[in-house]
Amino acid sequence: MRAEIISVGTELLLGQITDTNAPYLSRALSALGIDVFYRITVGDNTARLGETLERALTRADLVITIGGLGPTQDDLTKETIAEVLAERMAADPESEEAIRAFFERRGIQIAQSNLKQALKPESGIAIPNSVGTAPGTIVEKNGKIVIALPGPPSEFVPMVESSVIPYLSLKSTGAQTIILSRTLRVCGIGESAAEEKVKDLLGSANPTIAPYAMSGEVQFRITAKASDRDEALRMISGLESQARERLADLVYGVDDETLESVVVHALIERKLSLALAESCTGGLISHRVTNVPGSSEPLLAGITAYGNAAKTKFLGVPKELILSHGAVSPEVAEAMAEGAAAQTGADLALGVTGIAGPGGGSLEKPVGLVYIGLKTPEGVNSTKNVFGGSRQEIKLRASQTALNLLRIYLLGHQ
Amino acid sequence: MRAEIISVGTELLLGQITDTNAPYLSRALSALGIDVFYRITVGDNTARLGETLERALTRADLVITIGGLGPTQDDLTKETIAEVLAERMAADPESEEAIRAFFERRGIQIAQSNLKQALKPESGIAIPNSVGTAPGTIVEKNGKIVIALPGPPSEFVPMVESSVIPYLSLKSTGAQTIILSRTLRVCGIGESAAEEKVKDLLGSANPTIAPYAMSGEVQFRITAKASDRDEALRMISGLESQARERLADLVYGVDDETLESVVVHALIERKLSLALAESCTGGLISHRVTNVPGSSEPLLAGITAYGNAAKTKFLGVPKELILSHGAVSPEVAEAMAEGAAAQTGADLALGVTGIAGPGGGSLEKPVGLVYIGLKTPEGVNSTKNVFGGSRQEIKLRASQTALNLLRIYLLGHQ
Repeated sequence: MRAEIISVGTELLLGQITDTNAPYLSRALSALGIDVFYRITVGDNTARLGETLERALTRADLVITIGGLGPTQDDLTKETIAEVLAERMAADPESEEAIRAFFERRGIQIAQSNLKQALKPESGIAIPNSVGTAPGTIVEKNGKIVIALPGPPSEFVPMVESSVIPYLSLKSTGAQTIILSRTLRVCGIGESAAEEKVKDLLGSANPTIAPYAMSGEVQFRITAKASDRDEALRMISGLESQARERLADLVYGVDDETLESVVVHALIERKLSLALAESCTGGLISHRVTNVPGSSEPLLAGITAYGNAAKTKFLGVPKELILSHGAVSPEVAEAMAEGAAAQTGADLALGVTGIAGPGGGSLEKPVGLVYIGLKTPEGVNSTKNVFGGSRQEIKLRASQTALNLLRIYLLGHQ
Repeated sequence: MRAEIISVGTELLLGQITDTNAPYLSRALSALGIDVFYRITVGDNTARLGETLERALTRADLVITIGGLGPTQDDLTKETIAEVLAERMAADPESEEAIRAFFERRGIQIAQSNLKQALKPESGIAIPNSVGTAPGTIVEKNGKIVIALPGPPSEFVPMVESSVIPYLSLKSTGAQTIILSRTLRVCGIGESAAEEKVKDLLGSANPTIAPYAMSGEVQFRITAKASDRDEALRMISGLESQARERLADLVYGVDDETLESVVVHALIERKLSLALAESCTGGLISHRVTNVPGSSEPLLAGITAYGNAAKTKFLGVPKELILSHGAVSPEVAEAMAEGAAAQTGADLALGVTGIAGPGGGSLEKPVGLVYIGLKTPEGVNSTKNVFGGSRQEIKLRASQTALNLLRIYLLGHQ
């Protein structure tokens, strides 16, 4: 089954609100094995909505509209569907009843415009709205299905879950296809280099594997199409093993796992404690680590030491060391990590110093230069990095690289 | 001028990521008086992208694509544009230079696939990418304009601002109606209460004012439609004055101003220094403050002191105080703020302690309970707050409330 999604609303088209409904519906259809090839946004304009509907019906079996079911004169989605399908509008007695009851419960006088919401294309069936006053509609005609759903997410989501998914599951039983995905999350390598490592797999038609570059990491999404769930999972596992063989330790997690959660769980498992000394990342590593529930166990303290005085006072970095090497230097990064470990008694400590910009850079020490020191029971070392992007991206990439150093160390110390 | 926006990417079509670029571009075009009638999302599929481009060129003067400019085999937007416009692809020497320099700066070996990004349709001009490796392209042909922009928001937004808007402003000088908006950002009050304060203004037809609830704040967007920019600005200013009269000090900024930037600039202006002592916010306040360029001047240090030992060691909070009142108490919040100020010599200090959850709550001290201490030259005090939401939302709301306390204090100390 091929579907097309049409989001209706001038406020969407002008960018005044962001459409979360259409991506949600895409995911729901994809899970049912229904292909979505186009998603279109049009304003509250009958002519353009009509044209869009007509074109969608020439290339899709299923067209789902979102929005334009309200009581106002702007809301014309159902009327336009009726016109395109050459149907008349007719009142749905049950919807009318439900709307009257809705207003009675709230003790509000009903307006004539509210009863317009009980109208639907003659041959359609109404989908009850458990939250608001706008019922949805399903029309089956000439081998095509048109479904109209309300725009407010609080009404749209329950209607998709309680009515649309069950209806479409039933309809698409003959299709016997489901689509499942798993995402491998990779860091410590750029997109091109990561892709190079798995390039012999990228041609695979089913399951497929596709790279996405995100800030500070690369994701590979493996997607399988199969007749049932078990078969799809088996296909994914096969390709996943091949990809993992090539990417090895670069893979830090799957799906919704974050780098910080992987690190915190590894620390807890190994009963190791952590301290953080941050200059240019300014507390971001500490923020990310403390986003993970349970992080209070391994994290002893985080120090944001922007100025030299704070580096000396809280981390015991010698003034002379800063004067002779500069605050942005491998020596200071290592001294910050050592100081954080010494002051807190932590097993592991990170020290991060660099230039996040936009000012403060020089030819020798450009914006984006970041040294990351790592203190472990075995000793201390540091890495030099140059990150691109805005101040916030440099902070993010530095935090990602620092957490990844910690992850790699923990991998070697099971 | 009529425009159409085409977002390209299978991950968008499947709903794996939400498209924030297209709404942003819609707003930018709208501000220029350029009408957007359709917005379309297609996957990484040359045939369907080609068909969409062809149709768009029949009904719009300007077609802007977003995405598909990466180095991988999936990225085919520029090639498809060339095909639809019957052009050959040609290398742009300046783009090639910029891409090579990008990799050299980072000390990374360049892959052959990266140089593919320097190709563009023959008659097109390249738009430099100040952040990443994918240049954009503008092609003017047969009275139509096609613009290709990269998908990562960190590359897309600067390119729209620095190149696309100036180019289109020049092109559309003839346009008659322009739409301008300004957003008032409000915090320290809930959405309903904020709306109540300006409810007599909400009916205004032009300019309009509309509330949006965001996490930790409320925004009011004022939008005016006028024949020229000055007229639109005058209309906005009129309604803005009325709204500000009612909202007074609750308004902390406009448009893209953040609470942290307002606070940092107020500190710099008043030559006051700041220290942060964070328990449940875990470094988030420090991270937000250090997102602001120039924050190294007022911010002396930030301490993430999750455990009791760190509160005593780095902030000098007496052990007995924690034992007698509990770590989550007004006494400890105040002592943390006092300790941070004493240890650093800062003029102002925040101390934040609470329960971010999901575990650790009790009947007496539920998840979401947060005490915020503020030390000023005049003394120390604290507030009790109970925030709802997930761990991350509680952290965000606590950081917002803490920064707002600082802002209100600074307002009274010009």
